[in-house]
Amino acid sequence: MGVDLNLQAELDIIAIGRACIDLNAVEYNRPMEETMTFRKYVGGSPANIAIGISRLGLKAGFIGKLSDDQHGRFIQQYMADAGVDTSHMVIDHEGHKTGLAFTEIKSPEECSILMYRDEVADLFLYPSEVSEAYIKRSKILLVSGTALAKSPSREAALKAVQLAKKNNVKVVFELDYRPYTWESEAETSVYYTLVAQQSDIVIGTRDEYDVMENRQNTKNEKTVNHLFQYSPELVVIKHGVEGSYAYTKSGKIYRGKAYKTKVLKTFGAGDSYASAFLYALIKGKDIETALKYGSASAAIVVSRHSSSEAMPTVQEIEKFISERSEEKVVNR
Amino acid sequence: MGVDLNLQAELDIIAIGRACIDLNAVEYNRPMEETMTFRKYVGGSPANIAIGISRLGLKAGFIGKLSDDQHGRFIQQYMADAGVDTSHMVIDHEGHKTGLAFTEIKSPEECSILMYRDEVADLFLYPSEVSEAYIKRSKILLVSGTALAKSPSREAALKAVQLAKKNNVKVVFELDYRPYTWESEAETSVYYTLVAQQSDIVIGTRDEYDVMENRQNTKNEKTVNHLFQYSPELVVIKHGVEGSYAYTKSGKIYRGKAYKTKVLKTFGAGDSYASAFLYALIKGKDIETALKYGSASAAIVVSRHSSSEAMPTVQEIEKFISERSEEKVVNR
Amino acid sequence: MGVDLNLQAELDIIAIGRACIDLNAVEYNRPMEETMTFRKYVGGSPANIAIGISRLGLKAGFIGKLSDDQHGRFIQQYMADAGVDTSHMVIDHEGHKTGLAFTEIKSPEECSILMYRDEVADLFLYPSEVSEAYIKRSKILLVSGTALAKSPSREAALKAVQLAKKNNVKVVFELDYRPYTWESEAETSVYYTLVAQQSDIVIGTRDEYDVMENRQNTKNEKTVNHLFQYSPELVVIKHGVEGSYAYTKSGKIYRGKAYKTKVLKTFGAGDSYASAFLYALIKGKDIETALKYGSASAAIVVSRHSSSEAMPTVQEIEKFISERSEEKVVNR
Amino acid sequence: MGVDLNLQAELDIIAIGRACIDLNAVEYNRPMEETMTFRKYVGGSPANIAIGISRLGLKAGFIGKLSDDQHGRFIQQYMADAGVDTSHMVIDHEGHKTGLAFTEIKSPEECSILMYRDEVADLFLYPSEVSEAYIKRSKILLVSGTALAKSPSREAALKAVQLAKKNNVKVVFELDYRPYTWESEAETSVYYTLVAQQSDIVIGTRDEYDVMENRQNTKNEKTVNHLFQYSPELVVIKHGVEGSYAYTKSGKIYRGKAYKTKVLKTFGAGDSYASAFLYALIKGKDIETALKYGSASAAIVVSRHSSSEAMPTVQEIEKFISERSEEKVVNR
Repeated sequence: MGVDLNLQAELDIIAIGRACIDLNAVEYNRPMEETMTFRKYVGGSPANIAIGISRLGLKAGFIGKLSDDQHGRFIQQYMADAGVDTSHMVIDHEGHKTGLAFTEIKSPEECSILMYRDEVADLFLYPSEVSEAYIKRSKILLVSGTALAKSPSREAALKAVQLAKKNNVKVVFELDYRPYTWESEAETSVYYTLVAQQSDIVIGTRDEYDVMENRQNTKNEKTVNHLFQYSPELVVIKHGVEGSYAYTKSGKIYRGKAYKTKVLKTFGAGDSYASAFLYALIKGKDIETALKYGSASAAIVVSRHSSSEAMPTVQEIEKFISERSEEKVVNR
Repeated sequence: MGVDLNLQAELDIIAIGRACIDLNAVEYNRPMEETMTFRKYVGGSPANIAIGISRLGLKAGFIGKLSDDQHGRFIQQYMADAGVDTSHMVIDHEGHKTGLAFTEIKSPEECSILMYRDEVADLFLYPSEVSEAYIKRSKILLVSGTALAKSPSREAALKAVQLAKKNNVKVVFELDYRPYTWESEAETSVYYTLVAQQSDIVIGTRDEYDVMENRQNTKNEKTVNHLFQYSPELVVIKHGVEGSYAYTKSGKIYRGKAYKTKVLKTFGAGDSYASAFLYALIKGKDIETALKYGSASAAIVVSRHSSSEAMPTVQEIEKFISERSEEKVVNR
Repeated sequence: MGVDLNLQAELDIIAIGRACIDLNAVEYNRPMEETMTFRKYVGGSPANIAIGISRLGLKAGFIGKLSDDQHGRFIQQYMADAGVDTSHMVIDHEGHKTGLAFTEIKSPEECSILMYRDEVADLFLYPSEVSEAYIKRSKILLVSGTALAKSPSREAALKAVQLAKKNNVKVVFELDYRPYTWESEAETSVYYTLVAQQSDIVIGTRDEYDVMENRQNTKNEKTVNHLFQYSPELVVIKHGVEGSYAYTKSGKIYRGKAYKTKVLKTFGAGDSYASAFLYALIKGKDIETALKYGSASAAIVVSRHSSSEAMPTVQEIEKFISERSEEKVVNR
Repeated sequence: MGVDLNLQAELDIIAIGRACIDLNAVEYNRPMEETMTFRKYVGGSPANIAIGISRLGLKAGFIGKLSDDQHGRFIQQYMADAGVDTSHMVIDHEGHKTGLAFTEIKSPEECSILMYRDEVADLFLYPSEVSEAYIKRSKILLVSGTALAKSPSREAALKAVQLAKKNNVKVVFELDYRPYTWESEAETSVYYTLVAQQSDIVIGTRDEYDVMENRQNTKNEKTVNHLFQYSPELVVIKHGVEGSYAYTKSGKIYRGKAYKTKVLKTFGAGDSYASAFLYALIKGKDIETALKYGSASAAIVVSRHSSSEAMPTVQEIEKFISERSEEKVVNR
């Protein structure tokens, strides 16, 4: 894959960022105003990825901050039960709450999220709470873009990147852009550029790279030419139903197709994609296979109700791929 | 009742303050960590009181601020359907969210609330959004203590009190103390004292009056002697299962007993009490009868799942009173 | 004067609010850009009034908060040396700075102030730092309007008013409106109305009363008719060079003329007016005499470089009045 | 010097960061409480350096934000008169004030500063106000550490670094650590490490490098070994009266001695050092000579009253060096 992992490292991946609560509409295919019941799941991109990677049998850890209440305790228990190492999820003692995402599913094509992200606990992870000894124990550090949205979580994530680079832990940057947490796109662009230039692998949608570049409709070639002047070895750019592209520093380009599936909602596609793609890379599979794993995992999750609990096993992914070897599916 | 209402006024009561969302545990009698589904209701003390009074057949209005999203629209629609005049519920355009209350019912005796109140829309009602012409149209202005917790909602409520007094609209102050929204008890004491001194009727629990006085275990006599030097004509002090006391400026004391009932949860008791008590006063009933209405309404609501949807009709209250004419019930 | 003071009280007046630093242009009659040297004085309306009253031989105290630095220590020493009781000036331990006012004197008619008021120490006086025992020791509590501009100073001032009223200490409200510290005129109006209604004496310029009423060009009669429905016994409305009017609840109206003088700058006129006017009232002089004292004191201060150090003695005021018994002077 | 400058670039240096007001004690050698008069100068490390470099005959520009008031206008005029290009100093329209520094000179050894830095204009430079076209016009971008202390100035400075690197403009990082503007040393360490790793030249005191490393008493060798793994070519570490050391990536070490002089105050030593040191480098002088220029310039400035106006000319520096060719002087 062009990215040499430290195979001695005990953990396969450590994700840093938010672990939140999704409140998914029980009665869906209608406006949220008419939904009267909501089902609780763990959510948040890096939490979903850590859970997804654990579901696939690898060893994931998490660095994050949890509210000191029922929601925080639920998240920690759920992630521990899913096999994630939660020893570095710290408890907030300043009264901050867990972030919430109420999901509205009007139709498979019209999904939206009502977010509660004001002063939430995950944004109050302090740089002093990021441990060099812990990061050293992992092959990969996965940074979620949203962790960069506000101080002090921003500095905690930047410090984690500095420690990873110092200790030869590979850095994967999942752009995960959520506009509501940022002051401006100009601000996002500064930090996305900064971290992308220092990462080994960058994963995002075309739109997210446009935000990073503070420009619109850039060509993929321009994006990767810029990034390959810095640390990145592998850049993945997702184009929704048109599939995704993986570029390597050595000049190779791979295209992954999106599988067609019965979509219940679009949430969770990106997180399931990332977890299966990284799983395959860590397992030493080639990039083409990794792209298939990513697409298959996304296709499975969008057909189910949640983003975290829906994460597939290796058997499910492989069964899906073999059944659909000729098909194309929606992938976001 | 010692309080002369302007009988010409078109609206019986206008409540000012918060209208929020309650998310009540569907699976209860367990810790919230184990509750996976939540049911959505309108909540917030003054909203509950306005809905309760409408349910009893009177004409209620509301001054408040709603988020510009699905939760805000749900609240406005629900209250309008319940008969509340929502013409002065303004929409927030600064991105603030609706306040949330996740209710945990471990047992009928162990209920707690997980609150989302950071920067919520109701606290961003501006004094310029309070209309003198509207307040003039009502017999009573009901101020909820929580509306005083933060600026600019604080100034909006203080202005409403000034306009009510100027226009001979009676002011009812429901102490409704929620510690998490205030900087300190010293701050609460300043504003509670200020508004209580200017109100015609004050309603609260013994604990809430202690917060107002920034002191512990004050005798009711001391509390009412202080307040009767100012505007109040009627002071109601609630003592939980021991019932409630109503004091008049003319020196009369009335005791209301609490009805025993099968308690599902304790939330909503105070709001249902206030709405039925005020209903009776507005209808010209004597204070003893009003205390009975309040207790009966509270007993009915605590046996049901919600605080707003559970509000009883006059028929239900009167049937309850006649059935239990000899009993005593839990009232909070 | 229609205001009965508790003659047993040890202190004549306690002022609550800000004590700051003025940095007055040493080279004046030019734009501040061209002023290279600034002279340091104690400033801030209530501090100036306390110093002015002490200079006149009465006993003044002060409730306020000082920065824990050289400026804070200078203020405390200067006020103590001026005879003010500084035992209730508390030191800030949260890192807040002293407020600053750079004064620009382009010409006697064109004076402006460049203010540093962001997060300054005086606005962080907490209600818990206001002592009932101290307030009881005074005949008069003087509240400066600017103390109401932000929490927690706002609550400290409101609490002081509550304690004064409870203990029969007369409340004087000096409107002292400074737009930069307030969120909006609607907010100012709410608190100015609140405190004015509870005060015994209100002093301000016509413009300041307009802010209180959130209206423009109100007639004095309308203003005083409103206030006399509440606590005020005496209302002073200043009209700049046209002089000032004092209205009593009993229906009397007095006009004070402004003395003509050689004006160096206009700053400090209001504070020197208030201190001499209140001095005369406390000394039992009639209102006409008090108005003269106020005008004379203002005329003396505007001819000098500072606002605090310039405060005149009784001898200076009386000499001035006798010399100018026929003249009219600029008074703001 | 190991740093290849783009000799075609029109400007020699662009500094980014704060331009403020110093208020220096006119009566000194005493506590500030006893100083009654203050003299106004332009201050702030990057402004002083830009002025110093202009005084030496080079072409300096400045990127920063100024208050929309007399102080802001004074700064812009003073810097323009000093020859600095002020075309990219933008005016704040959000009401922020100019930062202030009151200097206390108790004795030449006991100098302290009373800072006004809350919400000051220079910290509100937005990344969108940093122009790539402008940065391209310079040989060097000088970043002052304090510009990184708060958003959005932090993002503006980070963006400037990204644009400089992209356009082959050399980056000089002057650590300029001021504790009061930062949340924590952990936060400072993250950003100092980030920018130092991306700079070509880093200049600071031993104490400032300790803050960067979030460690105490590190050996210089450890510091430079770390930095030379990244972009830096030249690292200058200052040790006060013991002089300064310059390390090059190629392994050379140079020691500069401090000149003995009659010290009036210690302020301004670092800024005058940096401007003369960079002047010499830009002029193509060797590092040993540059260290002498830096020390001489510092020695001259600490013997004078201000930091900006005191900046020496080339003739003064060269005369000083030739006169003191054998001496050692205090340099901070």
